[in-house]
Amino acid sequence: MTDRRKPVFLVIGAGAGIGGNAALRFAAGGYHAVLARRSDEAGLARMVAEIEAASGTASGTLLNAAEDGSIEELVERTERDIGPVHTALYNLGAQIGTRALDQTPHRTFELGWRLGTYGVFRLAHALLPHMTARAAEGTLGTLLVTSSTASVRGNAGQHSHAAAMGGRRMLCQTLNAEFAAQGIHVAHVIVDGPVDAPDTLGKLLGDSFGAFKQAKGKDGVIDPAALAETYWHLAHQPRSCWTHEVDVRPWTDTPWWNDNPDPQVAVTRRPQI
Amino acid sequence: MTDRRKPVFLVIGAGAGIGGNAALRFAAGGYHAVLARRSDEAGLARMVAEIEAASGTASGTLLNAAEDGSIEELVERTERDIGPVHTALYNLGAQIGTRALDQTPHRTFELGWRLGTYGVFRLAHALLPHMTARAAEGTLGTLLVTSSTASVRGNAGQHSHAAAMGGRRMLCQTLNAEFAAQGIHVAHVIVDGPVDAPDTLGKLLGDSFGAFKQAKGKDGVIDPAALAETYWHLAHQPRSCWTHEVDVRPWTDTPWWNDNPDPQVAVTRRPQI
Amino acid sequence: MTDRRKPVFLVIGAGAGIGGNAALRFAAGGYHAVLARRSDEAGLARMVAEIEAASGTASGTLLNAAEDGSIEELVERTERDIGPVHTALYNLGAQIGTRALDQTPHRTFELGWRLGTYGVFRLAHALLPHMTARAAEGTLGTLLVTSSTASVRGNAGQHSHAAAMGGRRMLCQTLNAEFAAQGIHVAHVIVDGPVDAPDTLGKLLGDSFGAFKQAKGKDGVIDPAALAETYWHLAHQPRSCWTHEVDVRPWTDTPWWNDNPDPQVAVTRRPQI
Amino acid sequence: MTDRRKPVFLVIGAGAGIGGNAALRFAAGGYHAVLARRSDEAGLARMVAEIEAASGTASGTLLNAAEDGSIEELVERTERDIGPVHTALYNLGAQIGTRALDQTPHRTFELGWRLGTYGVFRLAHALLPHMTARAAEGTLGTLLVTSSTASVRGNAGQHSHAAAMGGRRMLCQTLNAEFAAQGIHVAHVIVDGPVDAPDTLGKLLGDSFGAFKQAKGKDGVIDPAALAETYWHLAHQPRSCWTHEVDVRPWTDTPWWNDNPDPQVAVTRRPQI
Repeated sequence: MTDRRKPVFLVIGAGAGIGGNAALRFAAGGYHAVLARRSDEAGLARMVAEIEAASGTASGTLLNAAEDGSIEELVERTERDIGPVHTALYNLGAQIGTRALDQTPHRTFELGWRLGTYGVFRLAHALLPHMTARAAEGTLGTLLVTSSTASVRGNAGQHSHAAAMGGRRMLCQTLNAEFAAQGIHVAHVIVDGPVDAPDTLGKLLGDSFGAFKQAKGKDGVIDPAALAETYWHLAHQPRSCWTHEVDVRPWTDTPWWNDNPDPQVAVTRRPQI
Repeated sequence: MTDRRKPVFLVIGAGAGIGGNAALRFAAGGYHAVLARRSDEAGLARMVAEIEAASGTASGTLLNAAEDGSIEELVERTERDIGPVHTALYNLGAQIGTRALDQTPHRTFELGWRLGTYGVFRLAHALLPHMTARAAEGTLGTLLVTSSTASVRGNAGQHSHAAAMGGRRMLCQTLNAEFAAQGIHVAHVIVDGPVDAPDTLGKLLGDSFGAFKQAKGKDGVIDPAALAETYWHLAHQPRSCWTHEVDVRPWTDTPWWNDNPDPQVAVTRRPQI
Repeated sequence: MTDRRKPVFLVIGAGAGIGGNAALRFAAGGYHAVLARRSDEAGLARMVAEIEAASGTASGTLLNAAEDGSIEELVERTERDIGPVHTALYNLGAQIGTRALDQTPHRTFELGWRLGTYGVFRLAHALLPHMTARAAEGTLGTLLVTSSTASVRGNAGQHSHAAAMGGRRMLCQTLNAEFAAQGIHVAHVIVDGPVDAPDTLGKLLGDSFGAFKQAKGKDGVIDPAALAETYWHLAHQPRSCWTHEVDVRPWTDTPWWNDNPDPQVAVTRRPQI
Repeated sequence: MTDRRKPVFLVIGAGAGIGGNAALRFAAGGYHAVLARRSDEAGLARMVAEIEAASGTASGTLLNAAEDGSIEELVERTERDIGPVHTALYNLGAQIGTRALDQTPHRTFELGWRLGTYGVFRLAHALLPHMTARAAEGTLGTLLVTSSTASVRGNAGQHSHAAAMGGRRMLCQTLNAEFAAQGIHVAHVIVDGPVDAPDTLGKLLGDSFGAFKQAKGKDGVIDPAALAETYWHLAHQPRSCWTHEVDVRPWTDTPWWNDNPDPQVAVTRRPQI
């Protein structure tokens, strides 16, 4: 159900992990949540129902973000039929697992870019004119972008993913450079750890997802509801104090810049230098 | 006044800017604030009184952090006489303005290190054993460290400051690498913009502080109360989702990694490359 | 003319700046240079003639790198008809000048990716199997990639360029992570200053190129022949001591991470933080 | 023996690894090498003799760099008695192995800073006035600084080392920002891999050094003679094309920003994110 007096929180990539939890959080805080995801209409309906059960309002829509015009149409439809998007979250990943270069076909690499980089550009192109028009009248806008470790370093087997995320990060910086002083807060969130997200990591790991979480121990995997609080915080920082980049990971995880602390590994691999 | 049932928020560098506002915020959230600063007993008393007027509790103490044993004594005294420090904020800067190398005496450079790097090490040395002992029993601890742009890049005339802050940042990473999985959250906050802080930037700029703020425009200088909310958020992230590094700046400020957007400057300086 | 006993240096983006000078340098060092560029057959012939006049050998070819199959065909033809490519240089840029988001059409952004990121991927896909086969028999290979400041930070108006270069940098890291230990040296060169290159910067600046160089002063613009020496050095580092990333700029230029040192600007812009 | 017509190459930290090999390389290229190290007069004499046997000239001196006035006196003595220092190499490390915070005494941390950060500052303070005076008359100067992975990330157990190296890196940036345009080339070299250096890594690993090198395989440890070629290259880049930062590592080593590629480790540790 739509309540036109509410600001809209639009999330592209609304799976049961980060996207869904962010929608839940923003709906609880008074936004109307618009959830877009590629497939699983039933899952989408469940998330909308969950939000409504918590006295929030939400709408769900299926979206093939890789298709030209799809994001653009969603933005226009939302702005026209639902309400002004005050905060948008681009939450599509482009992770395809670890693949050597010769196992990374050209069209895979291109699709990585379409979802990882180009989609952010398209969303910004479609949405920011609406936001800047409102910002000129005093209503700020926020563009949150979920990103990953691959945006700051390229690991073996990550040709498609890292190239896409590296482009995403630089694009967030250029968007921020152009739009921050116009009243649009762009935040690039480096999710540097596994998320308890059945629709992404869960699908990637398949049957071993449970064992993986077990092995990580208590609170060893990012709770997407916790991350949603950080998104909420970012979207409500006063404009005198805006964060552009922030990282998150579980307490027991080694940050990407550190060596594996396992002493067995460290010793055979290399001394500290 | 002390309330031994409260967790303690300890801030070293409790001026009227970031430190004082963080104390106010944590006191409002149920902590007993312990404020330590180098001088201005009257100013300290005013901050304690302000917290108490808002129904919080706080204690103030003068502290020469550069002196051996001073931080250590403060930690022991606080833990013994006031209560367990759940969150500490190291908020001392080491900015001395822009000085060429031959205007940077050796003892100035050393003092920069004492306040900028060594003080964090000393605080960690004194405090983390208390925190880890409690963390082993289920009470997590947080060490917040205010840092600056100089921790990620060294500008002309910043020999003392940048060397001290570069050391600070790497130290925060080594502390995090050792202590995160023990239940201590270490967060390094890159304050990449001017703060509306009369005791630091205000003193540095002197009479031109007002004109400076005027020139920056509305919300053009970081409101330390806004930054205090980010500190509060960091200190209360669930341990499955901890941030180690975050940046903040006013909406109208160019991030440190961007060129000055003034087209006059950009054109004469260099084309985009 | 081709000398099949020589190793081949293949440069994609062989204008009269970096590409042409690198070809000249490698030819002088005993390589057969293969120069590929998009247009200007006469200019290409002049560069080949210049190399031959200096007793080197070279071949030139026109290449539309944005076209599917073009890079692939060039690699196959070179390996089959000319000789083994020991060192390749991907030297295509994607700079289109400073353009606001609404002046950056979707197809421009996509073309930036095609030349900036995808071309490196395609070259690696086509060439590295040849190189790794030889490396297994003891002949190492080198992939040099000219890159830019936009690969490490996104400035205003650089949406297309920075996204493309950010992807390029991460891709170079993933290539290095997979191929270094197989004997392929991948080097990412951050050209953080204007180059005295008539075919790129010269065209971008047009009539003001001369005045620009004049204003930069003596040695104030990167001499591409000097940069070619750094490329030569990188391509001949023994494998126990390989560089992955290096930056270059003129002595009088401020590195990208520093503020403009002009005191007028610094003061009105912001104090050191 | 001294030849006053030669430019001087001064190396502080002239062990049998990087420092000694750099001295050998610069002496072979026509410099008079001045080698300073803390102890082992016999080893020093052997290095001088080796340089002279190769028809070069060199002088050796013992130096306690941690002692106030020592570096200063060496610079003055060299400039006065031997000749103008055209290139200096600060090659002292501060690695003390992996130590938890409670095993890192305060004086150890301070000593790390004295050798890791303050020594570079002191060398710059003493030497750069000589260099800038000559640069004003057309003779450029170069300050090479050997640095380490710990200058860009802080690992567990590296409190002293990383803080010192983080300060070193920022200081190199501030020195470059002030002095590059005055004709002094400052280069920060990130040695991101083990070096075949008996006096440093050899001592750290002790009896296991041989087994370590064996395990790393052919060319699996940086040959300091190869690194010396990179130092030579840096010191002779024309001023239109100066490198400030460069990294090096053996071909088989994983760069610091990459995860350990061992699939066993990667799988149990975390999926790619």
